[in-house]
Amino acid sequence: MPGLLDPLFRGSAVDAVFTDAATVQGMLDFEAALARAEAALSIIPAGADIAIACQCRVEQIDLDALALAAAKAGNTAIPLVKALTAKVAAADRDASRFVHWGATSQDIMDTGLVLQIRQALPLVDEGLAALEGHLARLAATHAETPLAARTWMQQALPTTFGLKAAGWMAAVGRARRAVAASGRDCLVLQFGGAAGTLAALGDRGLEVAEALARGLDLILPDLPWHGHRDRLVALGAALGLVAGVLGKMARDLSLLMQTEVGEAFEPAEAGKGGSSAMPHKRNPVACAVALSAATRVPPLVATLFAAMPQEQERGLGGWHAEWETLPEIFRLVGGSLRVMTDTMAGLEVDAARMRANLDITRGLLMSESVVMALGEALGRGPAHSLVEKAGRQAVAEGRALGEVLATLPEVTAHLSPQQLAAALDPSGYLGMAPQFVARALAARNSSRDA
Amino acid sequence: MPGLLDPLFRGSAVDAVFTDAATVQGMLDFEAALARAEAALSIIPAGADIAIACQCRVEQIDLDALALAAAKAGNTAIPLVKALTAKVAAADRDASRFVHWGATSQDIMDTGLVLQIRQALPLVDEGLAALEGHLARLAATHAETPLAARTWMQQALPTTFGLKAAGWMAAVGRARRAVAASGRDCLVLQFGGAAGTLAALGDRGLEVAEALARGLDLILPDLPWHGHRDRLVALGAALGLVAGVLGKMARDLSLLMQTEVGEAFEPAEAGKGGSSAMPHKRNPVACAVALSAATRVPPLVATLFAAMPQEQERGLGGWHAEWETLPEIFRLVGGSLRVMTDTMAGLEVDAARMRANLDITRGLLMSESVVMALGEALGRGPAHSLVEKAGRQAVAEGRALGEVLATLPEVTAHLSPQQLAAALDPSGYLGMAPQFVARALAARNSSRDA
Amino acid sequence: MPGLLDPLFRGSAVDAVFTDAATVQGMLDFEAALARAEAALSIIPAGADIAIACQCRVEQIDLDALALAAAKAGNTAIPLVKALTAKVAAADRDASRFVHWGATSQDIMDTGLVLQIRQALPLVDEGLAALEGHLARLAATHAETPLAARTWMQQALPTTFGLKAAGWMAAVGRARRAVAASGRDCLVLQFGGAAGTLAALGDRGLEVAEALARGLDLILPDLPWHGHRDRLVALGAALGLVAGVLGKMARDLSLLMQTEVGEAFEPAEAGKGGSSAMPHKRNPVACAVALSAATRVPPLVATLFAAMPQEQERGLGGWHAEWETLPEIFRLVGGSLRVMTDTMAGLEVDAARMRANLDITRGLLMSESVVMALGEALGRGPAHSLVEKAGRQAVAEGRALGEVLATLPEVTAHLSPQQLAAALDPSGYLGMAPQFVARALAARNSSRDA
Amino acid sequence: MPGLLDPLFRGSAVDAVFTDAATVQGMLDFEAALARAEAALSIIPAGADIAIACQCRVEQIDLDALALAAAKAGNTAIPLVKALTAKVAAADRDASRFVHWGATSQDIMDTGLVLQIRQALPLVDEGLAALEGHLARLAATHAETPLAARTWMQQALPTTFGLKAAGWMAAVGRARRAVAASGRDCLVLQFGGAAGTLAALGDRGLEVAEALARGLDLILPDLPWHGHRDRLVALGAALGLVAGVLGKMARDLSLLMQTEVGEAFEPAEAGKGGSSAMPHKRNPVACAVALSAATRVPPLVATLFAAMPQEQERGLGGWHAEWETLPEIFRLVGGSLRVMTDTMAGLEVDAARMRANLDITRGLLMSESVVMALGEALGRGPAHSLVEKAGRQAVAEGRALGEVLATLPEVTAHLSPQQLAAALDPSGYLGMAPQFVARALAARNSSRDA
Repeated sequence: MPGLLDPLFRGSAVDAVFTDAATVQGMLDFEAALARAEAALSIIPAGADIAIACQCRVEQIDLDALALAAAKAGNTAIPLVKALTAKVAAADRDASRFVHWGATSQDIMDTGLVLQIRQALPLVDEGLAALEGHLARLAATHAETPLAARTWMQQALPTTFGLKAAGWMAAVGRARRAVAASGRDCLVLQFGGAAGTLAALGDRGLEVAEALARGLDLILPDLPWHGHRDRLVALGAALGLVAGVLGKMARDLSLLMQTEVGEAFEPAEAGKGGSSAMPHKRNPVACAVALSAATRVPPLVATLFAAMPQEQERGLGGWHAEWETLPEIFRLVGGSLRVMTDTMAGLEVDAARMRANLDITRGLLMSESVVMALGEALGRGPAHSLVEKAGRQAVAEGRALGEVLATLPEVTAHLSPQQLAAALDPSGYLGMAPQFVARALAARNSSRDA
Repeated sequence: MPGLLDPLFRGSAVDAVFTDAATVQGMLDFEAALARAEAALSIIPAGADIAIACQCRVEQIDLDALALAAAKAGNTAIPLVKALTAKVAAADRDASRFVHWGATSQDIMDTGLVLQIRQALPLVDEGLAALEGHLARLAATHAETPLAARTWMQQALPTTFGLKAAGWMAAVGRARRAVAASGRDCLVLQFGGAAGTLAALGDRGLEVAEALARGLDLILPDLPWHGHRDRLVALGAALGLVAGVLGKMARDLSLLMQTEVGEAFEPAEAGKGGSSAMPHKRNPVACAVALSAATRVPPLVATLFAAMPQEQERGLGGWHAEWETLPEIFRLVGGSLRVMTDTMAGLEVDAARMRANLDITRGLLMSESVVMALGEALGRGPAHSLVEKAGRQAVAEGRALGEVLATLPEVTAHLSPQQLAAALDPSGYLGMAPQFVARALAARNSSRDA
Repeated sequence: MPGLLDPLFRGSAVDAVFTDAATVQGMLDFEAALARAEAALSIIPAGADIAIACQCRVEQIDLDALALAAAKAGNTAIPLVKALTAKVAAADRDASRFVHWGATSQDIMDTGLVLQIRQALPLVDEGLAALEGHLARLAATHAETPLAARTWMQQALPTTFGLKAAGWMAAVGRARRAVAASGRDCLVLQFGGAAGTLAALGDRGLEVAEALARGLDLILPDLPWHGHRDRLVALGAALGLVAGVLGKMARDLSLLMQTEVGEAFEPAEAGKGGSSAMPHKRNPVACAVALSAATRVPPLVATLFAAMPQEQERGLGGWHAEWETLPEIFRLVGGSLRVMTDTMAGLEVDAARMRANLDITRGLLMSESVVMALGEALGRGPAHSLVEKAGRQAVAEGRALGEVLATLPEVTAHLSPQQLAAALDPSGYLGMAPQFVARALAARNSSRDA
Repeated sequence: MPGLLDPLFRGSAVDAVFTDAATVQGMLDFEAALARAEAALSIIPAGADIAIACQCRVEQIDLDALALAAAKAGNTAIPLVKALTAKVAAADRDASRFVHWGATSQDIMDTGLVLQIRQALPLVDEGLAALEGHLARLAATHAETPLAARTWMQQALPTTFGLKAAGWMAAVGRARRAVAASGRDCLVLQFGGAAGTLAALGDRGLEVAEALARGLDLILPDLPWHGHRDRLVALGAALGLVAGVLGKMARDLSLLMQTEVGEAFEPAEAGKGGSSAMPHKRNPVACAVALSAATRVPPLVATLFAAMPQEQERGLGGWHAEWETLPEIFRLVGGSLRVMTDTMAGLEVDAARMRANLDITRGLLMSESVVMALGEALGRGPAHSLVEKAGRQAVAEGRALGEVLATLPEVTAHLSPQQLAAALDPSGYLGMAPQFVARALAARNSSRDA
């Protein structure tokens, strides 16, 4: 697609893995390794492998010509093998007969993709690890920084910003492990020949497959998997979890950044998110990227699932539907990860505003806390009725809950002004928030030690 | 995305509409028309419009630099306006102050997209019209060419290839009308300024909007639609219908092309779909493209629907999720349409094989027809029992249904050998197939006259 | 699905159209009409139609037994025809031979569905009309009620609540027309017999089809459409537009209802959305329903698109994928529509809070307006620089923009205190908002007159 | 949804887990365990737990009344707690004050769902294990049964039916492990109270959480996860893999069952898939179910991913979008699994027809094999040219490849008639198919031992 349509997702490290050149190099790596394995087993002549491997560098390939030929052939493998064969033939006519020996187009396209995935996985993992680290720092720093928990987009009770960050962090950790696990499962050789039986290699197919897997340092699966795409789909789904986890983080942050809330901000950066006509605006640019990815990735993941029922030994349309889809998912997730990592690295937290916003309801937010404080003396039921009534009165008279409560003898009989103030103080009603943060941080540390 | 990953969808006329250059030109066309409208209304100085319009040619813009700047700014409009302003300033410092006067980024991006859509629509329409024409020819030619109808992927009763083609044709016609209707609704100006009120133009916003719409020959909508995307979504859905209709056609054809069926074929073309190792293969390459599109487009359409709940006066993430998605849908549909049009233009129909395949069940396929023939004499119930019994006997003894029937006195008493043969002849049991074809062709003609 | 899992979508009028009983009645209506048409044409004996039609009432059918048999048969039509035949036979043995004469299972299932759609469409239309009416009232009432436009979830410039409501209204109107148009296209008879040729009716298939369409008051399509599902898909897409439009409205409203914003509220209702523990909360319950529908419907629409490539004369899996999906879309849209209509009927608008929130940025929101006011005297460029500098100063010193401006001689030289106050007053910077509202209301009225 | 619309997915064991009654019982189990944990820690009075637990049986609950109340309240938890409290109060007024102590609606809904998932997982696992077993048997039995491999829906080269079955088996095994792993991760307690801090339990929240997790035998997560849904989404994705794997199997089988192919069949069953009017038909009914599920599940999985960005401490719409979706996925996958397991338990394999179909191309399918046989003597290049030429001649003259080859002196000079026949025999060109089968079976056995 035209690059100007997608400025949002540019610039992540993952991009470099899914360029045209890298795609072609992945396929050439397969061809070189295949020749080496077959020469080592004397299936093709000694020396042919060297002649072939010498040409297996993408710099040697005319990518524009290849793109034209690919559009005609319907896939990239066929014209690439043709181009490679011509290159080899120019140097060593005999060797050129042994290019792609015993393999089929899907072998080199799938294995090439697997090699690209192998390059992309650590980049995604590093991004997630960095993000997890930033979030751990935020969780630790703000373990006891009170802000309003919002449920149904309404202020509910106090919580802490550290607990919010810890929730993000734990989710990032889980998504990271999901990508790692499903990524590992994808690192399998694809090698089955035209019908998945390696028949063109006579009785030596398995030997070649073993040597080839060794040469590429890939797992040799029990069977070729031309029509069985579940491993790739599972990886797509794991990347979908990353998109979703980042999207949730972005949703939260964009709500906190609202003009009327103003509790946390993407780091200010020259030329980003500002508006000269509207100097008060701090546009959540990174959040837009992450939310866009969280909107776009789920349907792309669905494409991978929907394409699974591929016909017999090689599918028609289903396989083809994957070609752009998995790289696109990587690209969107990579871009989203990049901006959210940068964002969390420099997140601006306005603890004072968080504290101030807790007062918007003028104490009503603390009703439950006052009920608890009064409950020991009055019993919870009567305490609840009392506070509820006071709340209604406060709303009706436009006063703070504390003011109303301070006028009630049932309250002052049991709570000193200090005790009442304490019951109305959000910092005193944080429950297990700091402990939950500590648990999450400890779990992260122990998983890092492991 | 890298071009080598998607050789399948290259080469349709639609591609040219959604290049980087065309995207930028669309936006520049907006800027030029805006300046013209504002100068005509004396809102900006006379002459400024000419100075601005002179620079509104994409050839003047450094697209690489723009792409870099866009990646930083988060959208293409901001750096484009900056670049345009610089160009204008170099020639006419004063005029440069009036670039983009009163408009917002989304105004130029949305209207630019609308202008691209306006270019793309006739291309899609022409493709669909051509395809409809090829299918009309096939329907007319084969109105009485019998082949097996398949339900649940099993031979059911005879039908005609013309009826199959007429079914495709009618669906193409409906999809074409859907694209035309929803396309028309999309040709609306987007112009609302920073908040959708055109406040920066004082009390003259509506005048400018009217002049601008006139200048661009677009409909002026009642309201700016920054957060309301339904028109674009409806167009995406109509294009989704095209993808689905083409996918159904491709599904049918790929089934007919199977080695074991062999009734119709994509036209042979040098370098396409053949395999030197497997000379008997005729790979349905175009069908693979169309089926891939039919798998990929529905989730992309879902992305557009899912992105609709955009926040307030300009959304966060939802709008951004559209940017690549609608052009991608156009690209996939354009590519699918191109190959299926070429396919139907040169479709090879093997009527003899169609006829031969009707005999695979050795007459069982014609059971209902024989029941009808006997029913007049025997009553339908007894006729049915008789034929059912004969069918079981034929299967058990490995004989043709006709052979078994010819030995039964209940049959020979009522049907002469000629009459029995006629009842077993698929050509004699085509029902309304030719009439249905005629109706569909007549409807197409009358809609063309209209 | 179990009803307790989905309390959200209960209670819309649409529900009654897609019950088991209504589904069966739709199919029985087809059978009765078929018998009548065939008797009128003397294809089945006079009187058989009456014997059949007498039994075509769902009250006569044991739905539990039918459900069991359907689970076994794989569809509902086969056991229903069997049950109906038995009923008829009990009363009139001869007539029972003519039940379902010449039809196939898909004929009665598809036509039954079409009849249900015909019942559902006016219910959806009435809901949309009512909602449009409520929104028109809100638009008219609040055409000049200022509130902050929010772009990127940040306050941008003033707009009016009427303009927001008019935007919703116009979108509802468009979605309503989309449902009406695609709904109309769906009201076609399905009648093709086992292979889509009506062969079992000899040369009278078309006559029967015409009479049947007349009897059911449905359009007779040019061709049977067993494998061509585009009409239903288009209707699903139009309903998807409704879900999206309602979702956008719900997104907006839920943002306005936030504790920190508090500008508009779902009507309070006993037992809904309140929380005794958290008396300050006003949960946006209707918004949750509409946003849930806007999340769930797009993938269901994608299912319909994805199921389009149905094999040959009757598909395998694709057709079956539609069975629950289209009714589910109706149900979700019906539920969403019901709650949002109720919400807009009783929406609580807090114009004072809207006005107050415009002051949160202490005048920065009005920067553009001040630039405009000063621009005439100073030129827009210098005015812009001046205001920008004042804005930075205001932020740095924690003062209002107006305060800072009032100290600057460049300002006071050109603007009197009253003029400065006017430039800082959001009500004075609403641009075309009232005019846009008027346009939208006029367009609605003229479309109602038409 | 009405049951008659979905006869296809009825009858799997999973259904019983997601009934209304089971849903309510899951929530009641939470309440009983909560009371027990709190009484054991003396947070609520001794005995209150018994009074509460006594009422926590779904048989005591009026489900119809609950459904009505739930539709009003917007969720099931609130009216259920109210109903439970009333029941407890009737027996023990004091105890009733401690129902639901410290918990929030989402705690009981999420934990109830987790308990249902725990019941459903072994049912899915047993189904997959049984299916795997049937496929292992097919793979072993047919390890050397030749049939045509089809790529692009065209006959390619021979393979074996055992290899096809082993491919299905291995995919089922992988999907089974994916469900097990992600299922395990879901078995976590949800318990955070109104804001996720357990503040209502003072400083004892964590103690209660630990005791509650112990009592329910669930994992205690580091943090409440009200807004973080990734574990459930990952489970949905794993179930999506099952749907896809079964869909691929169904696609393959439906192609093999075609009238023109006839190589394998769903087991015949009274009342299923047959047609009295068309006695030759063997409708692939189970395949229709599995393909329908494979079409419907991917978009539902996308719904779960799309719903991930849930707002702050409890989402609006996103959470609600999950309620019906995950159970629906379970139901569709359960139904698909049931029919495909039954199918593979009784699959009819027609090895003779498989062998016969290998002759459809009259030897062309074996071209590569002949090239290999001749290649040793002639060199691969010349051998290839020779066979290619012979192939063209065979096609042109309508003869078998073997016949043509037998007339060529270049062939007869190097291959005896027996050798030529061997080279043309599909059974002799199966490559590693039997070895691949053995590897897959061995891997399955070793994973069962582990």
